[in-house]
Amino acid sequence: MAVVTSHFLLPPLCLPSSPSSRTASQYSVSPKRPPIMAASSSSPSLTDPQYGGGRSRFMEFPHVSAPHRDLMVELVSAVEARLDSCLLPCTLPPDVQYYENQSGNAQASLQVRSGHDSSPIDFVLGSWIHCQLPSGGALNITSFSAYLNPSTDAPNFLIELIRSSPTSLVLILDLPPRKDLALDPDYLQTFYEDTKLESRRQLLEKIPESQPYFSSSLYIRCIVSPTAIMTRIETEAGGVERMEEILQSHVGPVAKEVLGIWLDQCAFGEREVGDSEISYLEKRDRLIRSKTIEIDLGSSLPRLFGPETAGRVLEAMRGVFK
Amino acid sequence: MAVVTSHFLLPPLCLPSSPSSRTASQYSVSPKRPPIMAASSSSPSLTDPQYGGGRSRFMEFPHVSAPHRDLMVELVSAVEARLDSCLLPCTLPPDVQYYENQSGNAQASLQVRSGHDSSPIDFVLGSWIHCQLPSGGALNITSFSAYLNPSTDAPNFLIELIRSSPTSLVLILDLPPRKDLALDPDYLQTFYEDTKLESRRQLLEKIPESQPYFSSSLYIRCIVSPTAIMTRIETEAGGVERMEEILQSHVGPVAKEVLGIWLDQCAFGEREVGDSEISYLEKRDRLIRSKTIEIDLGSSLPRLFGPETAGRVLEAMRGVFK
Repeated sequence: MAVVTSHFLLPPLCLPSSPSSRTASQYSVSPKRPPIMAASSSSPSLTDPQYGGGRSRFMEFPHVSAPHRDLMVELVSAVEARLDSCLLPCTLPPDVQYYENQSGNAQASLQVRSGHDSSPIDFVLGSWIHCQLPSGGALNITSFSAYLNPSTDAPNFLIELIRSSPTSLVLILDLPPRKDLALDPDYLQTFYEDTKLESRRQLLEKIPESQPYFSSSLYIRCIVSPTAIMTRIETEAGGVERMEEILQSHVGPVAKEVLGIWLDQCAFGEREVGDSEISYLEKRDRLIRSKTIEIDLGSSLPRLFGPETAGRVLEAMRGVFK
Repeated sequence: MAVVTSHFLLPPLCLPSSPSSRTASQYSVSPKRPPIMAASSSSPSLTDPQYGGGRSRFMEFPHVSAPHRDLMVELVSAVEARLDSCLLPCTLPPDVQYYENQSGNAQASLQVRSGHDSSPIDFVLGSWIHCQLPSGGALNITSFSAYLNPSTDAPNFLIELIRSSPTSLVLILDLPPRKDLALDPDYLQTFYEDTKLESRRQLLEKIPESQPYFSSSLYIRCIVSPTAIMTRIETEAGGVERMEEILQSHVGPVAKEVLGIWLDQCAFGEREVGDSEISYLEKRDRLIRSKTIEIDLGSSLPRLFGPETAGRVLEAMRGVFK
């Protein structure tokens, strides 16, 4: 899911693949590992042959700066290391794992790994999109998110970095809730107050070049948490160097902390969910996902990648999300 | 309800009075009036003897500047003019309608008018609080809000102006939703997109001295709408004159427009609500109100007004909200 890209016209995509299309030999089930947040870009998992070319291409993040790429690789690797026993390989068609437009000035990579049936993970997805701008610059969006299934009501995870220039960053970093927080103060307490997520939001708020970012979609504003980090950072005065410093010294540490909270408290937080609540979660999750796809992709995908490619990707997505 | 005052230590209060404590002669039922947003401070309703001394004291807003007072009076008068047939007189005890601390450096006024049983109005409430600061200045908070009952699911109305100095303003202006917006995109469309509330938020966002305001309470952040105007305006450079100009030329017009939307689309918007939804609304409204009181008043009321006054006010409030 991409929660903020609609007015950038460039949607990261999400497409959980169907477990039924895989064979048992594709599963990579191993004991749950202890928390690891320090996986590096040289992690063995990055070159694991099971992932094929689509994954390698995704993990290259070829169009963004080194600090930006390193952060994305580190986050994806940390999740894969920690959730290894829960995740199936990506089985998206090759032309959905990577696609571009006819003129070649817009390219995108997408990876989705569904969770094993016995795990609380529904799927994780990562994407990058690169689009050359008429001005001569480029727009780059990288995102990674993780969705839990209704066996738990714990929040999901989302990070998205949108770069419309080397000195511009919109950052979305959140654990989107899966319940109506107004009706569940205990849930708010458990996942947002006790975890002190607000202190992380304030850390990034204090960066002098930072200002709050408001998604142009009101619906998107409704599905993020009260501690969502939604910030726009502009470093024209300090140049590219300042932006890279902010990514390394501020955004990176906070993003890893938030992901660590998600892994410890959400992905592996034991929650009891009753039957009626499962139905509620299924309904709410389904509505939010379909509405988000509609907002993100409704018109931008055909415009960016042409009707044929857009049709292919959208058809696959609708098949999964129905 | 006051949604943002907890960290200012000064809560506006809310106390719907019980209709059973009134006599028929106290009712002021008349045909619904057409939209009136231009009620002035010289409106006859302000001196209506039915309201008694508590109301006169409330409507004086004695400690704030003329533009601030005029705005509050205009908003309250507009609601009273439009909802006249729906509202009962305030029946709060005199020592809850006005109270102060022992040293006399903190004073507060509170007015609550319940809605007639046949109306969609649950109650409207207005308050002001004045507190002298050790620095020599004063903190002034004025608020006005309107709550609908479960015969409709339409949003409530809320405005709050918090002045910690003559050149500082925190403004909260919102139609707080009464449903989980993530689960009801049609509701979002009807009350927040079709009404173009976002354009009003953006108008105030563009004031150079304005910056987004984040409530210190995460719960409060959860119960406001995606178009909530939560802004902090500081005019130290431009002085008091600039603040008054902003109040008159920017805040005032937007506040009146938002109130007009609430009156037309919410208070008088015909909505069909089924039995199961009534139960849901009752539960959600009740939880939000009690939680908001707890957040606002839990520790600040005794600290500001002493245990005796705080106990009196809190007891009355708990009796109404239980």
